[in-house]
Amino acid sequence: MTLDTDTDHNTAGATPQAEPIAQVTPAPRPTAAEAARTLADHQSQATLSTLAIDPAGHPFGSVAPYALLGDGTPVVFISALAEHTRNLTADPRASLLIATSNTFGDPMDAGRVTLLGTASKLADHDVAVAKEHYLSRHPRARAYINYGDFSFWTLRVEAVRWVGGFGRMAWCDPDHYRAAQPDPIVPIAEAALRHLNDDHADALLDMARALTGHPDANRAQAVRVDRYGIDLDIITPRGPASVRAPFTSDVTRPGDLRAATVALTAAARKRFNDD
Amino acid sequence: MTLDTDTDHNTAGATPQAEPIAQVTPAPRPTAAEAARTLADHQSQATLSTLAIDPAGHPFGSVAPYALLGDGTPVVFISALAEHTRNLTADPRASLLIATSNTFGDPMDAGRVTLLGTASKLADHDVAVAKEHYLSRHPRARAYINYGDFSFWTLRVEAVRWVGGFGRMAWCDPDHYRAAQPDPIVPIAEAALRHLNDDHADALLDMARALTGHPDANRAQAVRVDRYGIDLDIITPRGPASVRAPFTSDVTRPGDLRAATVALTAAARKRFNDD
Repeated sequence: MTLDTDTDHNTAGATPQAEPIAQVTPAPRPTAAEAARTLADHQSQATLSTLAIDPAGHPFGSVAPYALLGDGTPVVFISALAEHTRNLTADPRASLLIATSNTFGDPMDAGRVTLLGTASKLADHDVAVAKEHYLSRHPRARAYINYGDFSFWTLRVEAVRWVGGFGRMAWCDPDHYRAAQPDPIVPIAEAALRHLNDDHADALLDMARALTGHPDANRAQAVRVDRYGIDLDIITPRGPASVRAPFTSDVTRPGDLRAATVALTAAARKRFNDD
Repeated sequence: MTLDTDTDHNTAGATPQAEPIAQVTPAPRPTAAEAARTLADHQSQATLSTLAIDPAGHPFGSVAPYALLGDGTPVVFISALAEHTRNLTADPRASLLIATSNTFGDPMDAGRVTLLGTASKLADHDVAVAKEHYLSRHPRARAYINYGDFSFWTLRVEAVRWVGGFGRMAWCDPDHYRAAQPDPIVPIAEAALRHLNDDHADALLDMARALTGHPDANRAQAVRVDRYGIDLDIITPRGPASVRAPFTSDVTRPGDLRAATVALTAAARKRFNDD
């Protein structure tokens, strides 16, 4: 549950962080494999990189809508007449880059994952399941779902490169990627962040003071939320800090987020009263 | 000035088109090289495809903000610690996929271009110009512009694959790409389309009737506009058609679009009166 990133990259624009001056509640995070799987699960557009036939072996990027099968294996629906399909037919090595957009900040600080593997055209008896997954993400593809030149291909994932943003990145074990559960709250995370910051700034500040080792925090803003907790940017008299408050209850569906946040606020306030 | 696409792809969801029944005014379009250059010029985010070191030679996609030099050569600013830079150092073959987003329709019907070429790290005496171009498109990069591990690389463009949408695609001569002028009206095209459809439906219908060979058109909607003309989807008693009305005056800056549209409307109405 700990973040298995490496730190092979500078943290751009980093400011010195205030250190905790009180006890910190341990705050688990999604693993890189969970983060990668979550990202792939909630997007539907990717760049397919293949090896060109001419110039031979040259890396070639193209647009590829995709859907995931239950174990995270991507499916694409591509035309035999398109460059990437010609390329894959000659050499099945490929990768899919799946990127989120970062509306507010530097795109280099947005999450993305590269799934590397071997592509293969689905046999007729495997098409039905792939088609169902694909059309549920890409209903417009019904317009050409029966075109004779289009077919379903899967990418057997053999390596996973995840980048969470500046300084957060890792190679993930592909088996961990396949076994990981996508975070259920992604669809509501942005609205939840807005709601927390707009209407519950006092609760966020209590979390920061009681649980993150910064009892002197005087401002706290939620910047990210996942099934395991809330990332906060805080201000203290000793400087700013990026901290994390961990949920104390399980979040397995979007509807659990509200109760988890209420419980976390209660835990923070109880700790104040106990101190 | 004619569209040098090939037709190696089905046109998804195509409905039978009504044929012209009157004289058609010839309607030039941007060449594929112009369209590719225009697209690349107005975007700033791309996918960089490189060849991985491990697994060796495997195509690897990554996020790469870019800027164009005056001849359309892309510049990226990448860290020596990042996978793609390690890859390029071992093998400089690369491509950049630059895609537009299609808010309304199928993403497969949105424009994109793949620039294939050879990457090289800029020598110190070439950095100043690249830095200026890059920072003008990516001001946030100032935060890490002086980091020691980052450097500027250019991609010498050797092949250009352009896809305009369903059924519109071409390989472009890289010299034509370098010589092409980006279309100046892209930044205002969407607003102009909205304005034409909302407030000048009568003018669009007159254009369709007088200039595109469909005097019986009873509805016309502008679906695309470029420096050379307006693409219209029209309805006639004989069925729908996708047609084009060509500007009669030069459009070399955004401010010329309004006058060109007024002149085009006048030409359409004059032709009515002459008939």
